[in-house]
Amino acid sequence: MFPWKSIIAVNTNLNRALYLQISDSFIKEISAGRIQRSQKIPGSRKMAELLGLNRKTVIQAYEELSAQGWIQSISSSGTYISSDLPVSRYTSIETTELPSGKLPSPESNPFEYIPASIPNGKKLIIVDGGSPDHRLAPMDWVYRESRSIINSSYGKQLLTYSGVHGDDKLRDTLAQYLSETRGMNLNITNLLITRGSQMGIFLAAQALTNQGDKVVVGSSSYDAADWAFEYAGCQLKRVPVDQGGLNTSALAELCSRESIKMVYITPHHHFPTTVTLSNIRRIELMELSMKHDFIVVEDDYDYDFHYKSAPILPLASLDHGGRIIYVGSFSKVFAPNVRVGYVAASNWQIDRMARIRRIIDRQGDQIMERVMAEAIINGELSRHLKKSIRIYKQRRDHLVELLNKDLANHVEFDIPEGGMAVWLRFKNCQLTDLRDYFTSTGLSLDIDKYLARQFNAFRFGFTSLEEEEQNKVVDLMTKAIELSAS
Amino acid sequence: MFPWKSIIAVNTNLNRALYLQISDSFIKEISAGRIQRSQKIPGSRKMAELLGLNRKTVIQAYEELSAQGWIQSISSSGTYISSDLPVSRYTSIETTELPSGKLPSPESNPFEYIPASIPNGKKLIIVDGGSPDHRLAPMDWVYRESRSIINSSYGKQLLTYSGVHGDDKLRDTLAQYLSETRGMNLNITNLLITRGSQMGIFLAAQALTNQGDKVVVGSSSYDAADWAFEYAGCQLKRVPVDQGGLNTSALAELCSRESIKMVYITPHHHFPTTVTLSNIRRIELMELSMKHDFIVVEDDYDYDFHYKSAPILPLASLDHGGRIIYVGSFSKVFAPNVRVGYVAASNWQIDRMARIRRIIDRQGDQIMERVMAEAIINGELSRHLKKSIRIYKQRRDHLVELLNKDLANHVEFDIPEGGMAVWLRFKNCQLTDLRDYFTSTGLSLDIDKYLARQFNAFRFGFTSLEEEEQNKVVDLMTKAIELSAS
Repeated sequence: MFPWKSIIAVNTNLNRALYLQISDSFIKEISAGRIQRSQKIPGSRKMAELLGLNRKTVIQAYEELSAQGWIQSISSSGTYISSDLPVSRYTSIETTELPSGKLPSPESNPFEYIPASIPNGKKLIIVDGGSPDHRLAPMDWVYRESRSIINSSYGKQLLTYSGVHGDDKLRDTLAQYLSETRGMNLNITNLLITRGSQMGIFLAAQALTNQGDKVVVGSSSYDAADWAFEYAGCQLKRVPVDQGGLNTSALAELCSRESIKMVYITPHHHFPTTVTLSNIRRIELMELSMKHDFIVVEDDYDYDFHYKSAPILPLASLDHGGRIIYVGSFSKVFAPNVRVGYVAASNWQIDRMARIRRIIDRQGDQIMERVMAEAIINGELSRHLKKSIRIYKQRRDHLVELLNKDLANHVEFDIPEGGMAVWLRFKNCQLTDLRDYFTSTGLSLDIDKYLARQFNAFRFGFTSLEEEEQNKVVDLMTKAIELSAS
Repeated sequence: MFPWKSIIAVNTNLNRALYLQISDSFIKEISAGRIQRSQKIPGSRKMAELLGLNRKTVIQAYEELSAQGWIQSISSSGTYISSDLPVSRYTSIETTELPSGKLPSPESNPFEYIPASIPNGKKLIIVDGGSPDHRLAPMDWVYRESRSIINSSYGKQLLTYSGVHGDDKLRDTLAQYLSETRGMNLNITNLLITRGSQMGIFLAAQALTNQGDKVVVGSSSYDAADWAFEYAGCQLKRVPVDQGGLNTSALAELCSRESIKMVYITPHHHFPTTVTLSNIRRIELMELSMKHDFIVVEDDYDYDFHYKSAPILPLASLDHGGRIIYVGSFSKVFAPNVRVGYVAASNWQIDRMARIRRIIDRQGDQIMERVMAEAIINGELSRHLKKSIRIYKQRRDHLVELLNKDLANHVEFDIPEGGMAVWLRFKNCQLTDLRDYFTSTGLSLDIDKYLARQFNAFRFGFTSLEEEEQNKVVDLMTKAIELSAS
């Protein structure tokens, strides 16, 4: 007797109807060759008995299998597995020892230079490398607004397929906003809404460079931008970064020797060292871009967070003749999970990027995009910015005081004029050696191993930590350092 | 007298503080070379008079400019534009006639094969090529749920940066769900959450093919998948599609001649012709994939919508030894704007795709992902599916009846077993000629020019149209056809 009971598996706790579970089992077994074609199968009454199920369930399953062509009834003879299924040659997939039986997993992953981000452990106190404090963001307002949009008459339309450039109202509002707050001269056709700065950088790399092109980044620079350029097949050229930002004399020297296609900068504030690109350097960079015909990707993710004076206007506010691709994001303003950003560029550049975006993810979340437009229009954005800049400045000042008080013997740093992190350099101990001690005290610091080796430094994000939390972190850091010295 | 008043532009209606508007103007003019370095500028009292502003505002502006290094005060002499700004060579950007003055926009866009989707005109009645009816979807529940998640203690964490693979709870729930509903044997490590099917296809193309690889698609096939493979540098090989789906004999013949890297299919239901890939073809396809070592991308976006019998289990439910990349989406279930999808594949394939995803958009919307998990867990998803399948079947039947009644002389079609569209072939008139007539009656049909030329057919999406709306559309189509004949 064929072991029907052990092969036909049903489970009443599952979401799927019992009769479908029966037909699923049949199909799997037939496909795997464990039930042969032309094999006779028990009648529905018999099968119901065998499986301990209601006969109606079995009849439904047989009807399903019959409708799908897996079984056939031959009158006055019985029910059979169909004879014309080419299943015989298929028996070996699971047990085969042929090399073709299982697709071998390759020994190396060509994309290993990009880390697969895994969430942090849950029990650790996390110090990020500079993230907004989502607890300050009006997230409840964001979702209330979302709901009221989808329940409005105009909002329903935003639930359907639409243009790849993003919500028109956001583009329109943003063009006006960027003009007012950053002196940029642009209109709706110069804007592509993205999923955050990262997608802007990715699209610029894909759309505007070719295999082998040379792209200048700082030494060091934002790692995820490095990866995007490498992924596009570009060759990275590193130029030193000092207190004034990217060293434009070094860049000029490089440009005189090599043909540069693109320069990537984070002018407010350089990643990782948090310096601001100076006015003089900005102008020199523009001149070089004109002279050597390269494009500047201006990743201005930190523009809004400047505590000393007003931020310097972006390069994109100058008459740049299509040389600046300006990248911005709402993720840094509200919360990392608010995946709405934008690219401002010339029409032909936007056109290229938009077409590529079409095949990456079709379109953005138009509801969230519309909420961002509303945030600009009704002042929610500027209220939130005002509040968070005030609080972030306090947090920066608190951290600076704390570091001076408790860790002055071990670390040195410059007070950042803006942004979300202090670039903390260690003086008389190796950060790489300290790492395990930090973890043992319950701390998870954002220590990048390359930066730690190159600079013996890491980015201490202060904006996402309340003063009490900072106290605790610095206390634990002090303990860890003592522990390592003993 | 220097024309300060015409050059320093302030506007009290703008969001930006007046003193910053003044400093912005200065910076722009200096950068553009219209204000020279070392030029003396009027004192704050004089300037305030000139501009008709409060003196305090001007003082603030000067302080800002001074802090940024643009101007300097020389005691008992006055205030001057800084002398060490290298602005002189920068004068010509706007007016230059040198070829380097403005980055020329290239004559051709290498990505023109991908259309930049533009939204439809608003006054037309839109018939899509097969989209869910967002009016049926529990969108209010989705946003209520989002709000309650972000206001929960665990939900706050979802607002921060996290892993690229997507929300763990969704991956966990989905693994269970796919196992129960589709017989797939997988766990959380086999799943990568994406922004919808399109990103799944894009990532598969990017991660698992190389420049020049041959990829098989149907003739015709889903256009946005074609573009993704072309973009990855693959060579498309077209295999005929008939009533049983992709013709596997033709594929076998092709494989005997050429080395095939990947085969893309939409088994439920073939795009554009809506046929289902038959059981026999499925098994033959698996055999060929084993024999010739190619990967199958199974884009099963339409799985849930089958009206005749239960859908055939996916190829991915078989023991495929890593040969099937399974792509699914919630966009088709709820609404196009719900940009959450997934890819199920072997660990090493998921690892490659996840790393690439890291540099595209960093991560998905974890709140929406968590809502999808909740929809599975609390039954909202299956309730919605049950309801929409019932309604969609009625709409299909209504359309079939309507077409038979009103357009039988002009069109022919097969009743689709599932999916969201009828593949409507025209008999005695040219669809391309009819196009303008349709538009003139107020209709916007999803007529793809390539498909129209190749098949004289288009996809009439029935799921997003209520019966009354269908009546109106078919009525207008009839009028347009009469108009064209007269």
